[in-house]
Amino acid sequence: MSVLVDGLQYANWSEEIFRQMRAGDVDAVHVTITYHETFRETVLQIERWNRWFEAHPDLIFQGRSGADVALARETGRTAIFFGAQNPSCIEDDIGLVEILHTLGLRFMQLTYNNQSLLASGCYEEDDTGLTRMGRAVVAEMNRVGLVVDMSHSGERSTREAIEHSTRPIAITHANPSSWHAALRNKPDGLLRALGESGGMLGLSVYPHHLRDGSACTLGAWCDMAARAVDLVGPEGVGIGTDLCQDQPDSIVEWMRVGRWTKAMDFGEGSAAAPGFPPMPQWFNDNRDFGRIRDGLRQTGMDPATIDGVMGGNWRAFFEKSFGPQSAAPVLRQRAAE
Amino acid sequence: MSVLVDGLQYANWSEEIFRQMRAGDVDAVHVTITYHETFRETVLQIERWNRWFEAHPDLIFQGRSGADVALARETGRTAIFFGAQNPSCIEDDIGLVEILHTLGLRFMQLTYNNQSLLASGCYEEDDTGLTRMGRAVVAEMNRVGLVVDMSHSGERSTREAIEHSTRPIAITHANPSSWHAALRNKPDGLLRALGESGGMLGLSVYPHHLRDGSACTLGAWCDMAARAVDLVGPEGVGIGTDLCQDQPDSIVEWMRVGRWTKAMDFGEGSAAAPGFPPMPQWFNDNRDFGRIRDGLRQTGMDPATIDGVMGGNWRAFFEKSFGPQSAAPVLRQRAAE
Repeated sequence: MSVLVDGLQYANWSEEIFRQMRAGDVDAVHVTITYHETFRETVLQIERWNRWFEAHPDLIFQGRSGADVALARETGRTAIFFGAQNPSCIEDDIGLVEILHTLGLRFMQLTYNNQSLLASGCYEEDDTGLTRMGRAVVAEMNRVGLVVDMSHSGERSTREAIEHSTRPIAITHANPSSWHAALRNKPDGLLRALGESGGMLGLSVYPHHLRDGSACTLGAWCDMAARAVDLVGPEGVGIGTDLCQDQPDSIVEWMRVGRWTKAMDFGEGSAAAPGFPPMPQWFNDNRDFGRIRDGLRQTGMDPATIDGVMGGNWRAFFEKSFGPQSAAPVLRQRAAE
Repeated sequence: MSVLVDGLQYANWSEEIFRQMRAGDVDAVHVTITYHETFRETVLQIERWNRWFEAHPDLIFQGRSGADVALARETGRTAIFFGAQNPSCIEDDIGLVEILHTLGLRFMQLTYNNQSLLASGCYEEDDTGLTRMGRAVVAEMNRVGLVVDMSHSGERSTREAIEHSTRPIAITHANPSSWHAALRNKPDGLLRALGESGGMLGLSVYPHHLRDGSACTLGAWCDMAARAVDLVGPEGVGIGTDLCQDQPDSIVEWMRVGRWTKAMDFGEGSAAAPGFPPMPQWFNDNRDFGRIRDGLRQTGMDPATIDGVMGGNWRAFFEKSFGPQSAAPVLRQRAAE
């Protein structure tokens, strides 16, 4: 069964968007639920999702395991997997890793552009790698099945996460910096190391990560995807559109500035263009994944690899990543029932 | 299969106590994890339990469904089910009902002696029944599978909870006030209504709930149990020892005073005896349930009823109470997999 999975979205969620997911046959989406929010504020975001799950059980449900991707396909719904783009949600408390995993969190970035308690972000001048707490938290994330996501982290931190983590990590939404030089994109050597470790790269459609920005053509993006497959491996590449559909510009300001500065920080934008950039004309919402699939075919990519990139690789990654790392025999007995 | 279930304990948990649970063949315990704690403080208590579950997987595990009682028996461990003795943990946010249920909370008292946002406690002069929020929260508890516990509530509030709740409620730890007059015990008419609604009464061994207090004999307690079976019905009575083993007296002060007053409140105690009362000599820890079983036999209670009181009734109640109230067809399909 070929499945369709998006490795990252942060939309201004609505019934309309959920219906577009169904119209686009999207089986699963990793959704960002929190950036700089505290634990309690993150729980409020989960409460919002619980209301949506209750209101739209025919369209969406909360995904918890890799098997939920197939369940979504079988029942004609979209499985929603929670993720955090910054570790603010665990505050300074490693015990919140398991708590948030129990509440359904399946991805957590160790940093969002800046230095965090765990690692260095891609916008810091000095990347000092994983902190003492960072190493402890990665081990705890490994134990419970919460995926380390290094999309917004610095190069050294990302490399150390790959090395220190005993389970494959993910870069859910970024592209090779050899294709488009941006602090948020990743160098080829790092992407090779990611692939060798069994990790996943989700290719971004967010204009700041694209050569020629919003004017990037579908053909150019798909050629980049083919090159990423060469770098990371055919089982290590998926899609992570970074779709921020229907969001007001106040949200991109929150993403960039949070509460860490009283000044304005434009992130990947600029004073002249502070808001969300317009998406490439070939990808505006969840109904447009068919265009990407067609574009990948045009590159001559083989059908099995296309199925993997469009969702099969994320599904396999979900299956190996979201459960506890090692279960005692008595617990295995439970799982077998 | 005959199982052994305790409907309420709040001990100063330790490996020693967990080993006593195993020595006593206790299959499941409803443990109090929170009184006046906020949501965040309650999460800290769950974090403490997560550490115990991780440290002692051969002794205990977190119970989530009625089936976990049988699993506990089969794997030689004790299933730990979480409960709250006051709704402080949901603050003023109904969305926290589902959040806490996801984290494993299976019982919540609507009040602890005092007026809460939801209902009136048994120590208030005026019992005004369920509040507006109380009715909304009971409906939400019904929806997700969080049991309404009225052990410390006033009579009118308890009656209204029985009537308003669309699922059976519980009084996890109290005795008939016709046997021992105490504000915490319940009148016969209320206990009959509880039984008629399919609810459960857990019989307490806490001295303040006993005729003759700490000097109450096993025989007198078992006669009371037989009378409770007559009142509530043979399927509506279990045990809820209210065992507070190894707790320092600072804990009973927290239970009574919390942060709601700057004065001292002695609750069921007194200025002359402010601490935990000594337990009856026939029940000191989890290894003493056999004495209760023997005592029930002495009353002439039939073996099936004894099995029910010792745990079978709680198990059946757990099975019907902890899941979602009504599942849409597509969700039933999921559960059947």
